[in-house]
Amino acid sequence: MTQVDLDLAGSLFGQLDRATRRGRGIVRDSYGDGEQAAHDIMRAAAERIGLEISVDAIGNLTMMLPGKDRGAPRILIGSHLDSVPQGGNFDGAAGVVAGVCALSALRQAGFVPHYDIGVMGIRAEESSWFDVSYLGSGGAFGLLDPACLSVRRSDNGRTLEETLRARGFDPTVIAQRRRLLEPDQIRAYLELHIEQGPRLVAEGLPAAVVTGIRGCRRFRNARCVGEYGHSGALPRSLRHDAVAATVALLHHMEGVWNRAEEQGADLLITNGELYTDAAQHAPSKVPGETRFVIDLRSLSMEVMDSVATEARRAAQQIGEAYRVKFDLGAATDSPPAMMDPRLRSCLLGLLEQPLEMPSGAGHDAAVFAELGIPSAMIFVRNNHGSHNPEEAMDLADFAVGTQALIELLRQFPL
Amino acid sequence: MTQVDLDLAGSLFGQLDRATRRGRGIVRDSYGDGEQAAHDIMRAAAERIGLEISVDAIGNLTMMLPGKDRGAPRILIGSHLDSVPQGGNFDGAAGVVAGVCALSALRQAGFVPHYDIGVMGIRAEESSWFDVSYLGSGGAFGLLDPACLSVRRSDNGRTLEETLRARGFDPTVIAQRRRLLEPDQIRAYLELHIEQGPRLVAEGLPAAVVTGIRGCRRFRNARCVGEYGHSGALPRSLRHDAVAATVALLHHMEGVWNRAEEQGADLLITNGELYTDAAQHAPSKVPGETRFVIDLRSLSMEVMDSVATEARRAAQQIGEAYRVKFDLGAATDSPPAMMDPRLRSCLLGLLEQPLEMPSGAGHDAAVFAELGIPSAMIFVRNNHGSHNPEEAMDLADFAVGTQALIELLRQFPL
Repeated sequence: MTQVDLDLAGSLFGQLDRATRRGRGIVRDSYGDGEQAAHDIMRAAAERIGLEISVDAIGNLTMMLPGKDRGAPRILIGSHLDSVPQGGNFDGAAGVVAGVCALSALRQAGFVPHYDIGVMGIRAEESSWFDVSYLGSGGAFGLLDPACLSVRRSDNGRTLEETLRARGFDPTVIAQRRRLLEPDQIRAYLELHIEQGPRLVAEGLPAAVVTGIRGCRRFRNARCVGEYGHSGALPRSLRHDAVAATVALLHHMEGVWNRAEEQGADLLITNGELYTDAAQHAPSKVPGETRFVIDLRSLSMEVMDSVATEARRAAQQIGEAYRVKFDLGAATDSPPAMMDPRLRSCLLGLLEQPLEMPSGAGHDAAVFAELGIPSAMIFVRNNHGSHNPEEAMDLADFAVGTQALIELLRQFPL
Repeated sequence: MTQVDLDLAGSLFGQLDRATRRGRGIVRDSYGDGEQAAHDIMRAAAERIGLEISVDAIGNLTMMLPGKDRGAPRILIGSHLDSVPQGGNFDGAAGVVAGVCALSALRQAGFVPHYDIGVMGIRAEESSWFDVSYLGSGGAFGLLDPACLSVRRSDNGRTLEETLRARGFDPTVIAQRRRLLEPDQIRAYLELHIEQGPRLVAEGLPAAVVTGIRGCRRFRNARCVGEYGHSGALPRSLRHDAVAATVALLHHMEGVWNRAEEQGADLLITNGELYTDAAQHAPSKVPGETRFVIDLRSLSMEVMDSVATEARRAAQQIGEAYRVKFDLGAATDSPPAMMDPRLRSCLLGLLEQPLEMPSGAGHDAAVFAELGIPSAMIFVRNNHGSHNPEEAMDLADFAVGTQALIELLRQFPL
């Protein structure tokens, strides 16, 4: 068995932390100095190992272990090297470190793979800097709307186009939707990532295999409009109470969720924002307006469709009953992406305590999977959630996930 | 039958409007120039009618029609002459104009009452200027906490004490809790007021008799604390979702309200404010905190007690079920004040289409009633609610209410 080099992993995480911690949290800004520092660290490590280095026209880094058949479709291992502002050290980077450690282990063991195996340090996965989903991986496949070049970075206001040019990259790739990667030249895409939820901590397990990446249907700007009135003087029959109606709608949707779960459907419903209007509300007023978000997540597009349809139907009916008007607004949509059954089953077989779970958050793997590339993800136990300075992953858990990755690579062709 | 002098009423409302309209709305600031202008207008009218004028040490104006037995307990008709900022022309003032018109009609008819009948222009009923309930009437009975003298006016920041002195009034009355009015010297207190809700408009009736003034139990600073998390990655069983828990609690309380109504209880429940934390919430986060208000109104203290107890019990139970912590906080309390049954029944007999209804908002009549003074209120139909520039009362409806007031005055001793 080829062992993970934990000294290398520890050294890389340490370098990343020292280079990109700003105050309490990590700052690896998309196409900024923080992300570039992470790319430089990973590239230097790959050069020491003797991997072939390339950087594409929009800055994605690939570190390749050559295989026996260099012309055949390759295996890619990837994840992103940016972070949210004041994030943690592991979200994204763990997957790239895992890939580099895996190739280092294979090379040290003298293993020559059938096919090229590349580790990608993908650019700009976190949409907190540029409000664009999957900038690096989507851009590499020519999938981005060219209009995104004028999206401005949330902190410094510079457009994506200016930012790419300033780093020496080529925005015309995006403007012309040029493909830098061909899907049919990729045999499989593998991504290790920290779990962003608390389930592995709760289950007491070091790692799990991801079934799929949940889609998200989001009513970002839902609204209920009633009429303000005196809370002591308005009998119920004459009220147009926006809070009472909204409570009734959200309570109804909790019932929908309960029934979906009873039927075994994968579903999460969240109302992350809900508020009356601070400029108008008062303790002695019947509330005349609410704004809220309905965020639906599921592995199944059918489940999202039917729950969204039910939300619109219930809003209409409850609105009439409460004499208010709901406007759920337009829904944004990201489709679910299922992981490849054969890869999942191989990975499961490599875990001592096998567990599968969906990924609630989006990952670059969704881009690869949607293009029909067999994709798989490994989750590693992580405490305190992600996107915050308290992310906490044990190297021992990282080793379990990376070991499964190495063993999977050795099994190709499957 | 002694007829209401609608020319006098129209003239007084016109003078009040011209003297105190500032932009769109009416501004009769408590102990400010706007309120004083209203006092000056009413006093001048009373002097022309030949009423006896007096002003007490904290500025309440009394305009008296002498009765046959001048030593006997008197009848008081009253309401306030201040308004909320950008209020309407009728809230408060209608009751004082009604009283002056009533005494004018009685005097023109040559009627000499058994007892003195005074019309009070009461100071500072609206707590929007000084956050003190019933400043004028409570102050006249020595009921105020002397600490209120350091309460600052919401617009100019001057203390009540400074404000009283600047108008030539005597804050030591409040400091020493001196009584300017003796409850046992008041035979009855009568107040006409515009209805602040839409019920008379909905019923198509000009006026109604008030059964009582609803009490208010208010949880002003209720809070639910859960834990923020990723909306896609957190399974329901591991959530501490503050919105889901709050929705469950408020929905439960709507059920409590339904059952109370079925049992014929007088109850209103309002959640006028409800919000997640704008600094922390996000569409993709399980919400970790809500703040909200529970405002309970009822004519029955027992109903308010039992509903408040149920709210605390349910908050505890639902909090446990949803793994969050509710803190309803301290409740503020104003007790219900029932109107005098005999006066109510006399007034009902004087209305062509008799209707009784509770008052949801507070009125000076509550202060008199709580002191054991037989009190009654007449509501006059008003469109568009109160406390806004759109208050709309027809003089014909005002005449119906004032006519009932006049006839009641003629019936004393009852």
